[in-house]
Amino acid sequence: MTDFRSRLSTWLETPQVRWFITGVILFNAVTLGLETVPVAMATAGQLILTLDRICLTIFVIELVLKMVGYGRRFWRDGWNLFDFVIVGIALVPTTQGFSVLRALRVLRVLRVVSVFPRLRRVVEGLVTALPGMASVFLLMGLVFYVGAVMATKLFGATHPDWFGDLGRSGYTLFQIMTLESWSMGIVRPVMEVHPWAWAFFLPFILVTTFAVVNLLVGLIVNSMQDAHAEESNAATDAYRDEVLARLEAIEKRLGEGR
Amino acid sequence: MTDFRSRLSTWLETPQVRWFITGVILFNAVTLGLETVPVAMATAGQLILTLDRICLTIFVIELVLKMVGYGRRFWRDGWNLFDFVIVGIALVPTTQGFSVLRALRVLRVLRVVSVFPRLRRVVEGLVTALPGMASVFLLMGLVFYVGAVMATKLFGATHPDWFGDLGRSGYTLFQIMTLESWSMGIVRPVMEVHPWAWAFFLPFILVTTFAVVNLLVGLIVNSMQDAHAEESNAATDAYRDEVLARLEAIEKRLGEGR
Amino acid sequence: MTDFRSRLSTWLETPQVRWFITGVILFNAVTLGLETVPVAMATAGQLILTLDRICLTIFVIELVLKMVGYGRRFWRDGWNLFDFVIVGIALVPTTQGFSVLRALRVLRVLRVVSVFPRLRRVVEGLVTALPGMASVFLLMGLVFYVGAVMATKLFGATHPDWFGDLGRSGYTLFQIMTLESWSMGIVRPVMEVHPWAWAFFLPFILVTTFAVVNLLVGLIVNSMQDAHAEESNAATDAYRDEVLARLEAIEKRLGEGR
Amino acid sequence: MTDFRSRLSTWLETPQVRWFITGVILFNAVTLGLETVPVAMATAGQLILTLDRICLTIFVIELVLKMVGYGRRFWRDGWNLFDFVIVGIALVPTTQGFSVLRALRVLRVLRVVSVFPRLRRVVEGLVTALPGMASVFLLMGLVFYVGAVMATKLFGATHPDWFGDLGRSGYTLFQIMTLESWSMGIVRPVMEVHPWAWAFFLPFILVTTFAVVNLLVGLIVNSMQDAHAEESNAATDAYRDEVLARLEAIEKRLGEGR
Repeated sequence: MTDFRSRLSTWLETPQVRWFITGVILFNAVTLGLETVPVAMATAGQLILTLDRICLTIFVIELVLKMVGYGRRFWRDGWNLFDFVIVGIALVPTTQGFSVLRALRVLRVLRVVSVFPRLRRVVEGLVTALPGMASVFLLMGLVFYVGAVMATKLFGATHPDWFGDLGRSGYTLFQIMTLESWSMGIVRPVMEVHPWAWAFFLPFILVTTFAVVNLLVGLIVNSMQDAHAEESNAATDAYRDEVLARLEAIEKRLGEGR
Repeated sequence: MTDFRSRLSTWLETPQVRWFITGVILFNAVTLGLETVPVAMATAGQLILTLDRICLTIFVIELVLKMVGYGRRFWRDGWNLFDFVIVGIALVPTTQGFSVLRALRVLRVLRVVSVFPRLRRVVEGLVTALPGMASVFLLMGLVFYVGAVMATKLFGATHPDWFGDLGRSGYTLFQIMTLESWSMGIVRPVMEVHPWAWAFFLPFILVTTFAVVNLLVGLIVNSMQDAHAEESNAATDAYRDEVLARLEAIEKRLGEGR
Repeated sequence: MTDFRSRLSTWLETPQVRWFITGVILFNAVTLGLETVPVAMATAGQLILTLDRICLTIFVIELVLKMVGYGRRFWRDGWNLFDFVIVGIALVPTTQGFSVLRALRVLRVLRVVSVFPRLRRVVEGLVTALPGMASVFLLMGLVFYVGAVMATKLFGATHPDWFGDLGRSGYTLFQIMTLESWSMGIVRPVMEVHPWAWAFFLPFILVTTFAVVNLLVGLIVNSMQDAHAEESNAATDAYRDEVLARLEAIEKRLGEGR
Repeated sequence: MTDFRSRLSTWLETPQVRWFITGVILFNAVTLGLETVPVAMATAGQLILTLDRICLTIFVIELVLKMVGYGRRFWRDGWNLFDFVIVGIALVPTTQGFSVLRALRVLRVLRVVSVFPRLRRVVEGLVTALPGMASVFLLMGLVFYVGAVMATKLFGATHPDWFGDLGRSGYTLFQIMTLESWSMGIVRPVMEVHPWAWAFFLPFILVTTFAVVNLLVGLIVNSMQDAHAEESNAATDAYRDEVLARLEAIEKRLGEGR
């Protein structure tokens, strides 16, 4: 049994299998795209849907084989979980919430990332940068919560579309943070009713923008340190080791020489 | 008396008290949020307001105990002042300026920051970055003042909503600096009356954007230097000390060896 | 024959020829600009067009001479290909797609870049930065493709102007990524029909913005490393070589001294 | 005569004179601001204008004294030229172009910068960063010129308000570069007439944004190198000098010891 499993997992990792799966993913990306072209669906709709189903079947078989071949190891790799969830979505029966689930099936194209090592590394780089920014994210969540409660209390009665409840206020504050139509679209109309509204929104913009800028600065400094540490150490360490070794040799000789 | 005070301040710093206060803050954050949900207020409005008052009472007691326990030290810590002001706002009678003061009470949720050391450090990091940017801020204040006076004189008569007085001009120039609707919303309409208006606004945009960019560059360089200084010195200093010590030892031996 | 070629290529690189061509390019830039001034065209339209044709003739002659003089080498330099394409566009007969091809002829002004070494270096710097960002570009292309297919399926029926087909969806998503009118212009109207639309657009904005930020961080870190490597190595290498050489000499002497 | 001059220039640099001038500048800043407040002008208009004239007279006297005291040196300092131009503007008779020249007089407030050394240094820092970016500016100027000529030829006939002539096209392209209303405001309306217009505007946005990003990266890298060079060299140079000196001493002793 274990022998069969190890042979299976070895086979799954052969270039042929990998390239076949990659090919199916790319082919599936095209068929999923064609589903949005009315002309294509009118002339060959049945064919496109059948090809899509064949691709899905191949993915399911691949996943099952991986689960068997890797055993417990399968669940420890984040990318396998990613594939599992993405393929799993496509198997949910689509009677209710029809269009949404159908649209979510397109996420399958993202399997391209889990198949190409270079793309995987970029995504892993982005994801590993997140925990270091957790404190700033928490702080911004706090600022947004406080801002949303205050905005709802202050402007909810007069501008229910923008600040009617916590959800709407949070969305509007996000829009304001991105600086999209913050003044002409939101703050100027609000100021017609509450002339002092700028005293709420301007500090909000300054604080959130400053926090975003600090996220960026943190990202840059971290990446730079990582890059710096990697690069400089190789040459410098070699040099330093040599200096110390030579000094030791000189000391030794001096000891002998006496 | 001093013995009682030191015992009190020790007790205030025990994990149990800290976690209890943290719990009350988080619980209060929820009740303050529920005050914006009409359904919650309709069914349990009295309960929510009572819970809010209980939380506030606990904060007041905590603050008083801290003032007693820490004595003068209390006022030296910026975070205590922060808590004092935030809790104080909630005690101001709310007959006049009703809704605004009620909304400001939500700021109490920000006490979360003063309770969690990691969040405190992030905020302290942001605040300590400010003095280094004082010159640039002063410069931008100057540019805004000159810009606002000029805009009021030039466009105040024809576009009073945007440039009617110094306050309006300052607000509009801030909007233009954030690039929100600067052209379609403000400058194009102004240029219909004053065709040369671009000669005022384009330099303003370039200057302020360039100043903001320089703030950002300054922030990055400062953070980088701090990070660089911290990291590299440990290993490098140890190595340098060793090399110098060894060279000294060799010199000494050579002197003796004669 | 080869002798004639080498003499020709040497002549083409003399300062006189170079400055003559630069002058013609700058002169042509002016005449091409004048073609957009109705008054100039009304009074001296024929002259301007004739001058333009003379400039073009000079460029063609220069290109032909270069092809002859450099032979195969001509095609290996990217800037020669650039000149070839730009001059070639102007020779295509302009019966069909009239205005577009005429407008493309203005690209000839960009020959200024290929003539001034400093500008060449800036462009080469920008272009060499591109391959390092290939993975992130590929990833963003993937996110855009998946986003466009999903948006078309979800919102294509109700908002055909923005999400009617893959092309429109891609364009609208690009607009959303630049944060232009994303909320007031697109997402709020969409949310009136699909209230949960924010659950699609907000993650899209966060993911693409984060990816763009990472491109920027990558660019900064790379430029910094390049600059760092160039600068520090010269002085540091000389110092290190000297220290090692001296230590070696001392070791040798000590060996001899015995 | 020269003795009188040197005494005069010394007197001009005494703290008392400097602080007096600084006070007059700040006082003048207030009176210039008050000119925009209708109530203040209605009650004390004559007084404000008189005070303004007194301030101006003091500035003129200061400038004349400086010219006499410094002689030729006066014209070598950029800040003196700056003061000369700013004060000069206020002396131009204001019959024609009345409001514009009056507004320009507010620029006098910027003399604050020339008086405070810290602000001077910030501005000098910003200005010295400019030459290093000359190539990129030149390149962007080229892209804008080519883009403006092309846009005028392509869209000038159908959208004269935005692309009617070179000036309008340049302004509109600048607006598009800042991403303000580029899609909903400009490109979408243009695309209703020219469906392929995105093929012009999207590359323009990408190229100019990329160039701006590179300006930023260049600024950061330069500042970082300057900071790095200043900081690290002090400690490192001292260490290196000591190592080399000690090695020399050891070599000497070895030479003697033989």
